Amino acid sequence: MTYDLIVIGGGPAGITAGIYAARQKLKTLLITKGFAGQIAAKAVPIENYPGFEKTTGLELMQKFVAHLKKHKEVEIEIDSVKEIKKSGKDFFVLTVSKKEFEGRSVIVASGADPRPLEVPGEKEFIGKGVSYCVTCDGPFYHGKDVVIIGGGNAGFEAALSLANFAKKIYILERGDKALADKENQERAQKTAKIEVITSADIKKIEGGDFVSSIAYQDLNSKETKELKVEGVFVEIGYQPATSFVKNLVDFNKKDEIIVDPNTGETKTPGLFAAGDVDDSAYKQVVIAAGEGAKAAMSVSIYLQEKSSQAQW
Amino acid sequence: MTYDLIVIGGGPAGITAGIYAARQKLKTLLITKGFAGQIAAKAVPIENYPGFEKTTGLELMQKFVAHLKKHKEVEIEIDSVKEIKKSGKDFFVLTVSKKEFEGRSVIVASGADPRPLEVPGEKEFIGKGVSYCVTCDGPFYHGKDVVIIGGGNAGFEAALSLANFAKKIYILERGDKALADKENQERAQKTAKIEVITSADIKKIEGGDFVSSIAYQDLNSKETKELKVEGVFVEIGYQPATSFVKNLVDFNKKDEIIVDPNTGETKTPGLFAAGDVDDSAYKQVVIAAGEGAKAAMSVSIYLQEKSSQAQW
Repeated sequence: MTYDLIVIGGGPAGITAGIYAARQKLKTLLITKGFAGQIAAKAVPIENYPGFEKTTGLELMQKFVAHLKKHKEVEIEIDSVKEIKKSGKDFFVLTVSKKEFEGRSVIVASGADPRPLEVPGEKEFIGKGVSYCVTCDGPFYHGKDVVIIGGGNAGFEAALSLANFAKKIYILERGDKALADKENQERAQKTAKIEVITSADIKKIEGGDFVSSIAYQDLNSKETKELKVEGVFVEIGYQPATSFVKNLVDFNKKDEIIVDPNTGETKTPGLFAAGDVDDSAYKQVVIAAGEGAKAAMSVSIYLQEKSSQAQW
Repeated sequence: MTYDLIVIGGGPAGITAGIYAARQKLKTLLITKGFAGQIAAKAVPIENYPGFEKTTGLELMQKFVAHLKKHKEVEIEIDSVKEIKKSGKDFFVLTVSKKEFEGRSVIVASGADPRPLEVPGEKEFIGKGVSYCVTCDGPFYHGKDVVIIGGGNAGFEAALSLANFAKKIYILERGDKALADKENQERAQKTAKIEVITSADIKKIEGGDFVSSIAYQDLNSKETKELKVEGVFVEIGYQPATSFVKNLVDFNKKDEIIVDPNTGETKTPGLFAAGDVDDSAYKQVVIAAGEGAKAAMSVSIYLQEKSSQAQW
């Protein structure tokens, strides 16, 4: 059994690709670890997906998933992809559960995983004070002091969400100013609990059974300083989940898959990427969804061209 | 008064650009003829904007407009743009009502107007049997025979919508096969009322007070043939609404504004385009919305860079 299209990923890009593929009558398989993903885990309300004035990541993703599942012709496989190979004109997708699927085309929309700090103490204290998910773990820090590493939108949004629980929230930013957008920075300023420390490079996480402090270097004075905190939330971005595809695509410096921005196609014909895994500049739900639609429409043209060539 | 950003257009791309600009705290003016646009006039349900399993163009656009209007800081001007000039670093936008607005950046998201056939009889019979809007005029053709010019998705969707009213519906396609997607073609096949005629090039529209027939050339036999119809619906695509911007941008063969697909920027710094006016391949609500978001984020970066240069 050869699918017309295998979509890898169950976030906004993958789901939209699935909806569009179904409407093009492509025999489609969508493989995903699950439909939760980073959007569903987002701490703050989503207010910038047009059509929904204010929603949550979870609610929005539930709507996306219901929309996809209306198209019964899209098969869904809950699994992780281990490797993609190309043999002849077709792709072979191997999963962690040792299943193999064959497809005439593939859209990689596997999103991105939180980027780790890579400092001493980080791995040891995962689940004991170190977290990559404020929505999941925030409520455990009621009345405690915590630090967020990263002064971008994700860091500020995490801080605003934690303000419901924590006593004091530091935001540590390595650069000389926070990069979050003005709306987020203004909201944080209004919250007396939040303190932003710039030019601060985290060096170490320490504690006993649980985290009790971190050490950072003040990049101006070069001094090492300590913060007494019981929680460390890491919000320094995401690394694209692409290890399974490395022989077939080129990457940019951020390890994002390089695509033709007009079509979503990678350097391998028939292999497309969309959403947070690709090298487009902005990571937004509506942009990822648009890219998913674009990739599925490009797949449809690719398959038509391939089948008309096959007749000759 | 100089706006940070002037958005031209009130469709999915323009509205999304407005929402994103508001969240970036840009002082924004949105100029549009109205918020109806071609999406609101779409004849068939919209089933491919993720998050809404089935909606109408009108309903979806009402949600978009409400979402925009929640951001009271975006000023809205109901007017048509006549000309955009650049003088120094700023843009001057002149409207048909002879107002002038000044902006540090502009996003053109003015969509596209129906493309005319340019055959004898077309102009004379507008409103007397010739129509560019099935939703608007379809109900007047109850029990009548009509022809749709154009065998793409728009033509098939128009035919499916007219099947509720008309007695017999011809779809005339100049190419040797219809280009509509399979779902639309299958639906049309199930409707006995719809007949597709390919390799057919319309030459003339005739009648007395109202349309009574059309003449077309059969491109295979080269014969001229006649169809007795009382309605002619033109569905051969759209031409971008860009006459006001012609000195500042380059166009492709379809008269679409050429943009950098990563940012939406045109050849003029500070001037961006998004949605159906630009040269991206696929015209879809979710893709246009994604492009609106992308353009607004690019504007934000453009303005930051411009203001940091100004400090030196």
